[in-house]
Amino acid sequence: MCRFVLYLGPRTRLSSLIVDPNHSLIRQSVHSAEREEPLNGDGFGIGWYANELAPEPAVFRSITPAWNNRNLQNLARVVASDCVLAHVRAATQSSGVNEANCHPFRWRRYLCMHNGDIGDFRDVRRKLLASVGDEAFGNVYGSTDSEHFFALFIDCWLASIEQDPALRMARALAQAIDRVLELVRSVGKGSASYLNVAIADGDHAVVSRFTDEVGGKPESLYYFSGNLYPDLPDPSRPGPPVRHEVTVSSERLTSDPGWAEVPAGQIIILRRDRDPEFIAATARRWPARLDSALRAAP
Amino acid sequence: MCRFVLYLGPRTRLSSLIVDPNHSLIRQSVHSAEREEPLNGDGFGIGWYANELAPEPAVFRSITPAWNNRNLQNLARVVASDCVLAHVRAATQSSGVNEANCHPFRWRRYLCMHNGDIGDFRDVRRKLLASVGDEAFGNVYGSTDSEHFFALFIDCWLASIEQDPALRMARALAQAIDRVLELVRSVGKGSASYLNVAIADGDHAVVSRFTDEVGGKPESLYYFSGNLYPDLPDPSRPGPPVRHEVTVSSERLTSDPGWAEVPAGQIIILRRDRDPEFIAATARRWPARLDSALRAAP
Amino acid sequence: MCRFVLYLGPRTRLSSLIVDPNHSLIRQSVHSAEREEPLNGDGFGIGWYANELAPEPAVFRSITPAWNNRNLQNLARVVASDCVLAHVRAATQSSGVNEANCHPFRWRRYLCMHNGDIGDFRDVRRKLLASVGDEAFGNVYGSTDSEHFFALFIDCWLASIEQDPALRMARALAQAIDRVLELVRSVGKGSASYLNVAIADGDHAVVSRFTDEVGGKPESLYYFSGNLYPDLPDPSRPGPPVRHEVTVSSERLTSDPGWAEVPAGQIIILRRDRDPEFIAATARRWPARLDSALRAAP
Amino acid sequence: MCRFVLYLGPRTRLSSLIVDPNHSLIRQSVHSAEREEPLNGDGFGIGWYANELAPEPAVFRSITPAWNNRNLQNLARVVASDCVLAHVRAATQSSGVNEANCHPFRWRRYLCMHNGDIGDFRDVRRKLLASVGDEAFGNVYGSTDSEHFFALFIDCWLASIEQDPALRMARALAQAIDRVLELVRSVGKGSASYLNVAIADGDHAVVSRFTDEVGGKPESLYYFSGNLYPDLPDPSRPGPPVRHEVTVSSERLTSDPGWAEVPAGQIIILRRDRDPEFIAATARRWPARLDSALRAAP
Repeated sequence: MCRFVLYLGPRTRLSSLIVDPNHSLIRQSVHSAEREEPLNGDGFGIGWYANELAPEPAVFRSITPAWNNRNLQNLARVVASDCVLAHVRAATQSSGVNEANCHPFRWRRYLCMHNGDIGDFRDVRRKLLASVGDEAFGNVYGSTDSEHFFALFIDCWLASIEQDPALRMARALAQAIDRVLELVRSVGKGSASYLNVAIADGDHAVVSRFTDEVGGKPESLYYFSGNLYPDLPDPSRPGPPVRHEVTVSSERLTSDPGWAEVPAGQIIILRRDRDPEFIAATARRWPARLDSALRAAP
Repeated sequence: MCRFVLYLGPRTRLSSLIVDPNHSLIRQSVHSAEREEPLNGDGFGIGWYANELAPEPAVFRSITPAWNNRNLQNLARVVASDCVLAHVRAATQSSGVNEANCHPFRWRRYLCMHNGDIGDFRDVRRKLLASVGDEAFGNVYGSTDSEHFFALFIDCWLASIEQDPALRMARALAQAIDRVLELVRSVGKGSASYLNVAIADGDHAVVSRFTDEVGGKPESLYYFSGNLYPDLPDPSRPGPPVRHEVTVSSERLTSDPGWAEVPAGQIIILRRDRDPEFIAATARRWPARLDSALRAAP
Repeated sequence: MCRFVLYLGPRTRLSSLIVDPNHSLIRQSVHSAEREEPLNGDGFGIGWYANELAPEPAVFRSITPAWNNRNLQNLARVVASDCVLAHVRAATQSSGVNEANCHPFRWRRYLCMHNGDIGDFRDVRRKLLASVGDEAFGNVYGSTDSEHFFALFIDCWLASIEQDPALRMARALAQAIDRVLELVRSVGKGSASYLNVAIADGDHAVVSRFTDEVGGKPESLYYFSGNLYPDLPDPSRPGPPVRHEVTVSSERLTSDPGWAEVPAGQIIILRRDRDPEFIAATARRWPARLDSALRAAP
Repeated sequence: MCRFVLYLGPRTRLSSLIVDPNHSLIRQSVHSAEREEPLNGDGFGIGWYANELAPEPAVFRSITPAWNNRNLQNLARVVASDCVLAHVRAATQSSGVNEANCHPFRWRRYLCMHNGDIGDFRDVRRKLLASVGDEAFGNVYGSTDSEHFFALFIDCWLASIEQDPALRMARALAQAIDRVLELVRSVGKGSASYLNVAIADGDHAVVSRFTDEVGGKPESLYYFSGNLYPDLPDPSRPGPPVRHEVTVSSERLTSDPGWAEVPAGQIIILRRDRDPEFIAATARRWPARLDSALRAAP
């Protein structure tokens, strides 16, 4: 299990997500509030986009805990971006703590991070790898279930003919969830999976909140529309206010009442020019044309 | 604040202190039970003696947490020693997480580790360094109060004419405590110090449990005489039982009722050929000949 | 490419291989003499056996260079063993520097390290993984060709009915070489492989020196029978001299004329009770009973 | 000894200094051309200014070599700045490889890095620390001569009444050089010092090239005025060309004939609105008003 935060909006300093809030991601690395075990100290990673400089996002990952990493503190203070992903890890037994196992993972312009696990992963791993194409296979460098899930996403994304970039990402994410459930079922041990997965391309993002545990609750996930610090002048945010600014986080970063839960079993879809939209997290019952399946915030 | 364990007795595997007990040091790195903040994840270190191979002890230190360090797991399993020190760190703000700041610290045959802090250390540091001789000064590589305290110990030890090696260590420790209190007083801000300090030379060890907080309690510290696992065959412990085997630990490693508190304000003295002895942790009122000041376990 | 050293004989301090010789492994990490690029600074690893304490060997690996790692210096000084493997890495582009990619790799009692590369590995990887059983597959945690080669060895070893443990290791190594060549051929790009591979179980060891480069020379590999430091008293080596003591190393550790080349295309086989023996490094033309194929040192 | 590069000019991507040039700083970390020992693999650090976001610069330091650090590659690609310092380290025996010992060092808005050493530093250290004020003393966290030199600079800067920020930095640097030479002399062993030191505040920079070795040559140091890549469109550099753009580097980054040596015994002074200026590196014979002592490029 882990904790993560994703941001899409006008340029903001990384510290506004990672360091400054009362319940910032660094705080969650030590004292997460909605997990049984509060500790997420097995490394961390951040990814961000700087479109004017390079099409591919930057990734900074480390095996030391987020709370005592001075490089992270420094970067968070002087780096601003309009699309940010950050993740603190709680490693499971099967995969060691090394940089290849730290989130977010990258493929082309895409970044992916995960909170949860794939049921019976040690048994599923082989079948999963055998089921994807060479491009997706070649992007696996470590041993986490999360990176293997990303390979499924890549595979689904490559096979998609969806034109709209946000919907293509949403579809590939929902299909990857379908595929992983099918793979776990084929192993026959019946463990549940927990799949809170965030994927972004710099201009769009999709985040699922999902489990197939019978009668179970998925891991916590919240979103917030608007400026987290409306009263503070932020030198990294010049210009007029922008409406579509959304933060999605495993736990609420602040006590602001504006935070809302991402509904269980849903994917939240973020775009620069729209309010957040929601769609079911598994693609099996989706209509052919996705537009009609999208719903506004509850 | 931190947690530590020290062992003097027949050869034992490091894992018997660090990994195997219910409340092992690795457990204490995540869930220490007698500190307000249970986490000790800012690096760790172990030191041990292998007298047949080298006079100086080995030190293995790392900036990653003890609980996820595979090298530590490996070493603990295959290394056995008759004198072991191990420490998990909770860094204070003023000193960063790097290997030079991880305990135990070494000088010649001596290892030192600390749980607590020196009051007003940022103000005390200069005066402390100015007060010690070149040899002690030259052994300071990092920025922790703990390593600076060790410099005071080195200075006192070098000045001592005590013949008995264990008593010379005990005297230098108690004198170092006196000196640090005097230095803090001279700064005039009135903060208290917490000085649970363990020092060993491979055949003897001294551990203080001390604070000058008015009406305060020192950090927790326990000792256990005898084999922690009397019923288990341990391949690292051939030969007949040995009587004088003692473990000193910030928290009780097991639920065995044999654990006893080190009395507040005392130093526990360990030797291979005697029961543990106790002496006051500050040297100011000590008699010239220490023998008469030693007391047996309460 | 990389450099490595393997030792089988009476207990010796690790420093006698890693630190003390004029051309020690640490020296080779900075200034290797028989590679075009002298640097092997992308992490390192050591493995050693302590049979009296644990059946499985210890492994200590790190992503920092061997030459400046203080933990390595410390361990080398106080750890002694009768079977040691040590490796300094020069990473190739495709696999990052993290602990999972540092040699030696472990499976059960076996340790494996490699100097060289598998031709066209990015294309071979999938087929290789698909060709091995679950046990071998499940032991792959990183992305190096070396660890994948070890999976082939594990697969061949498990399938073997050879009774003699040293010959079983030799057969599995030669078969793994055959299989990797076949896999590279099936990809059809025609690159050569370099396979200097060392595998040990604590009591036996096999080391290949091999390439299928047409007209090419395999990476350098030498062996030395006898005590590297006959004139030095070594506290880690009590007791009378032992005859069968062999060091195998990518480069000669000393200027002693006793070093000999491992012949190209051969595997050197080490046992505690025999002189080194040699056998062809590919198994295709081996007789059913291996005894007759073994040859003494040239 | 080490290698470094400093840049002051219009915003440029870090990769244009660290990664892209034929003889980039990363190249120099493996194969520096103007040192006897080509290797600078004992950690690295970069510092840069983002004035619009924070007054204090960012620092990213690591104990792993620059050439294999993926975080560095990532940052270099997506971070652009108008004032950059970068350093690759070759550690000397006395100070270990940890982040506190990696350059650049920071104090307030100032960054400092060093190539060279202070003569007889182990003997000089105490006197040096005793000679500086509390503010300078409190900024020393590690054990390098370089960070101690920076403490001398801080002390001189604080004592200065110079109004012009660039001249204040130059004066403090030259005075710090004077002081260190005096300290070394007082120790009486007669070793020479090598003091190529770069200090910046985001808008100005001073870099010395100095040794007091009798008949000796200081470490190499070059500067280049103008755009290193005039023909390449660089997305990080919008707007019209800017004249005063200068790179100062231990070794020439490119084969462009525009590189010139910083004269031995001189400090080069960079400002955003002027051509580089030069002044003697020791302050003893400086006139009271510095303006008259400045010289244009030879």
